[in-house]
Amino acid sequence: MRLAVVGAGGHMGRELTRIAAQTQGVKLVAALDHKDSEWLGHDAGVLAGLQPLGISVTDDPQTAFARVDAVLDFTRPEASIAYANYAAQAHIAHIIGTTGFSDSQEKKIAAAARKTAIVKSGNMSPGVNLLAGLVKKAAQVLSAEGFDIEIVEMHHRRKVDAPSGTALLLGEAAALGRGINLAEHSARGRDGHTSERETGAIGFASLRGGSVVGEHSVIFAGEGERITLSHSAENRTIFARGALKAALWAKGKPHGLYSMFDVLGLND
Amino acid sequence: MRLAVVGAGGHMGRELTRIAAQTQGVKLVAALDHKDSEWLGHDAGVLAGLQPLGISVTDDPQTAFARVDAVLDFTRPEASIAYANYAAQAHIAHIIGTTGFSDSQEKKIAAAARKTAIVKSGNMSPGVNLLAGLVKKAAQVLSAEGFDIEIVEMHHRRKVDAPSGTALLLGEAAALGRGINLAEHSARGRDGHTSERETGAIGFASLRGGSVVGEHSVIFAGEGERITLSHSAENRTIFARGALKAALWAKGKPHGLYSMFDVLGLND
Amino acid sequence: MRLAVVGAGGHMGRELTRIAAQTQGVKLVAALDHKDSEWLGHDAGVLAGLQPLGISVTDDPQTAFARVDAVLDFTRPEASIAYANYAAQAHIAHIIGTTGFSDSQEKKIAAAARKTAIVKSGNMSPGVNLLAGLVKKAAQVLSAEGFDIEIVEMHHRRKVDAPSGTALLLGEAAALGRGINLAEHSARGRDGHTSERETGAIGFASLRGGSVVGEHSVIFAGEGERITLSHSAENRTIFARGALKAALWAKGKPHGLYSMFDVLGLND
Amino acid sequence: MRLAVVGAGGHMGRELTRIAAQTQGVKLVAALDHKDSEWLGHDAGVLAGLQPLGISVTDDPQTAFARVDAVLDFTRPEASIAYANYAAQAHIAHIIGTTGFSDSQEKKIAAAARKTAIVKSGNMSPGVNLLAGLVKKAAQVLSAEGFDIEIVEMHHRRKVDAPSGTALLLGEAAALGRGINLAEHSARGRDGHTSERETGAIGFASLRGGSVVGEHSVIFAGEGERITLSHSAENRTIFARGALKAALWAKGKPHGLYSMFDVLGLND
Repeated sequence: MRLAVVGAGGHMGRELTRIAAQTQGVKLVAALDHKDSEWLGHDAGVLAGLQPLGISVTDDPQTAFARVDAVLDFTRPEASIAYANYAAQAHIAHIIGTTGFSDSQEKKIAAAARKTAIVKSGNMSPGVNLLAGLVKKAAQVLSAEGFDIEIVEMHHRRKVDAPSGTALLLGEAAALGRGINLAEHSARGRDGHTSERETGAIGFASLRGGSVVGEHSVIFAGEGERITLSHSAENRTIFARGALKAALWAKGKPHGLYSMFDVLGLND
Repeated sequence: MRLAVVGAGGHMGRELTRIAAQTQGVKLVAALDHKDSEWLGHDAGVLAGLQPLGISVTDDPQTAFARVDAVLDFTRPEASIAYANYAAQAHIAHIIGTTGFSDSQEKKIAAAARKTAIVKSGNMSPGVNLLAGLVKKAAQVLSAEGFDIEIVEMHHRRKVDAPSGTALLLGEAAALGRGINLAEHSARGRDGHTSERETGAIGFASLRGGSVVGEHSVIFAGEGERITLSHSAENRTIFARGALKAALWAKGKPHGLYSMFDVLGLND
Repeated sequence: MRLAVVGAGGHMGRELTRIAAQTQGVKLVAALDHKDSEWLGHDAGVLAGLQPLGISVTDDPQTAFARVDAVLDFTRPEASIAYANYAAQAHIAHIIGTTGFSDSQEKKIAAAARKTAIVKSGNMSPGVNLLAGLVKKAAQVLSAEGFDIEIVEMHHRRKVDAPSGTALLLGEAAALGRGINLAEHSARGRDGHTSERETGAIGFASLRGGSVVGEHSVIFAGEGERITLSHSAENRTIFARGALKAALWAKGKPHGLYSMFDVLGLND
Repeated sequence: MRLAVVGAGGHMGRELTRIAAQTQGVKLVAALDHKDSEWLGHDAGVLAGLQPLGISVTDDPQTAFARVDAVLDFTRPEASIAYANYAAQAHIAHIIGTTGFSDSQEKKIAAAARKTAIVKSGNMSPGVNLLAGLVKKAAQVLSAEGFDIEIVEMHHRRKVDAPSGTALLLGEAAALGRGINLAEHSARGRDGHTSERETGAIGFASLRGGSVVGEHSVIFAGEGERITLSHSAENRTIFARGALKAALWAKGKPHGLYSMFDVLGLND
């Protein structure tokens, strides 16, 4: 399987290059960056801290996409929409780890997915996606009357928002399992006189400190027993690994908008 | 729903009485113990630390089972087989939390299940059974090449065997998800020079100390990330609660041998 | 060592009776309750779920305290002050687990402690007190520039305040180790846009659910490493055990106001 | 404070260069490697993935040590002994993170420490050393009759021995606190029919999987409560950070053989 990386000069682009070079069954053949990038002409391997790969960074998606089966993309919303159009024309799979799309931008991605296969997820880690699937299942089985759901996460001291996006994603999975609306059943920022816990609430708590990459636990607490489903990220390579997994899965798939749930077979 | 408890003078029998008295939708109407029990004639409520319930412990299953919809049974293998025959004749559901059946005893239970509904499980806790279902699913999704499975448990200082039966049950669930034979892929008692970890192995570790009722964690450790699925038992009432849940579920079910997986809807 | 229990008809009084009966080196010889108690005249052992001990509950501290070496007291502030005066007159050790004293009540306790030995603590659990000592030490050694302190606790769904008193006690221990004022450096109820973590802050997060007796973790998160110091309470007997330990320690001690830190030798 | 790094071409040498360049109050002025190193003449900054520092790797300790206040050394036993002699002659502090010394090699280090200050530790992480101090204290306070000690660790799948050296170091700290001999009280490789736990035993369990850098927990399990003291290493830079901390501490100290316990003030 032949791959292109876009945003090849950026942090995640280099990580994608590095992981693609280690992954069996794929071959990186093109690396792209935006028109004003200082990295145009540089070797993608060297940028990734590897030996030279003989792949110069270019700014021409049309030529590059004609030669590959899939493109890996952790850039920005506008850039990803432009790449989605090139990928649709070339009928190659588009793996999108970019976040922050507006509603109208989401529609453009959906339109491109009517011409080719797109895999898009706000968190490409296989582990977090599996965890979300397990949380949904557990929330279905364990009733709100019997089990209280609490979600606690920890991240490094520089993170400026709480709860984390992934904590909310896990909360959505729990709410989906329960058939409720998350916003209407969230208990956040618990402090002071709180009254007794409301039945059916989904609680969130956020810890911050040190250099923690990301830890999430979803607790189902009942009378006399607790189930805890946790994910711990040791470093950021897991997002690149997830993208590679998605690319290999997408090969030969019909057009459509897929998620990591599809890639991991969690939708049955 | 009308219930009988057998082994009503024993530790779990009293617990079943206590939890049945608290459970909506059921009514305890009979309590039994073996012929030589010192508790025959005592009030089942008083034995359970409650106010008197007006239910004297008897040793006559035939009469008692004619008046109930289901019987709760955490006794011993021979006793459970005898009760299974009475329950089959009376066409009432039989909830069996007894453990330690031999292969030939298992066949007798299966024979009784051709006449009435039997729910039988070595661990009636809803949480542990759900956890086993989640472990199986995770083991299916996360390949042996990518993720190593480790199971660690902790129990009180008086436990004499390791790993715990529930740890092995969780290991079986993982092996089932992977399509492998647990006995051929277990790594137990790791100590000294162990060599590198074998791909596909399922590791077990046992901690003992204090008064811990039972804690189990199944860890899926991959490159850069870990998923941990845990269960913590705070006390032994959860097994009685599970039995009550099973009884309510079994009402009106056709004959057959069911497990807590069926009760919790984990078999789809 | 001869002991009296006060509040013998209450929940903690019965627990104290039960644990005293199991503890080597002590003998329960008197049980008291307030003048209007419905339990006067009952046997303290039977109240505690034991065989009769031949000790009737009385309401006369003067007579009772003349016959014992120490009194165990988890009652209410006004009652504890009255008992403190009787104990001071009798020169017997007074072990106080009562909470909620006002400043003026605290002064009365201190006055009584000029005549006899008093051990007083808001949490009699040996484990929690040791943990507080370790937290203070760790906060001294690990500088605010290098390590962020986060305290997370979980309690059952019926708890109406957050953080728990014990979480605040642990926060005070950390603040003492750092030589800072806790109130000025607390980060509580983190939610929404929070900005980067402030250096030197001590964060608190509270989880609520199920029947959790009490779990506390203090996390010291630095660049590349984390230390976590945790306590898990399985049941409430640990407070009674701590009181017994305090009574045995207090025998023969000179008058003074002591804490569980003294009992456990954590003040050196 | 002026520093030299030895083994500058190796993995830990590069890490030491990188962390030294980030640390306030120190200035790296010399980098050394062995006579046959392929890195002689290279810039130490470039080797560490930084901008050039203008420091060429040399093989002449005598000249280099004359210009510095301390030397950082994570090499091999024979090399460290040679460097210890040069450091003793130059009267500069020698920070040794090297492991695997024989008894006779230990004596040579001790001899060098009669002429200059040496800080030597098998694990330079401030966190692990603090944890060992806390474990010792907890083991002193919590008696063997009341609390069982269990040590569990997890490392990546390539680790070939169990338990880890750090788990044994923590076990030694616990044994020291209890005043017992670790080897005589270890319970390792628990599996099968184990009998009840022996009072006073220190249990070890080892988990292996994925890419875990190193996690250690010491559990004190009593009746009704548990204290858990844990350390989690996210990456290997913490050992370099510890060495820098040791160097800053050692400045101006009289000759002698010190450990990280001295550096962290844990010996009072």
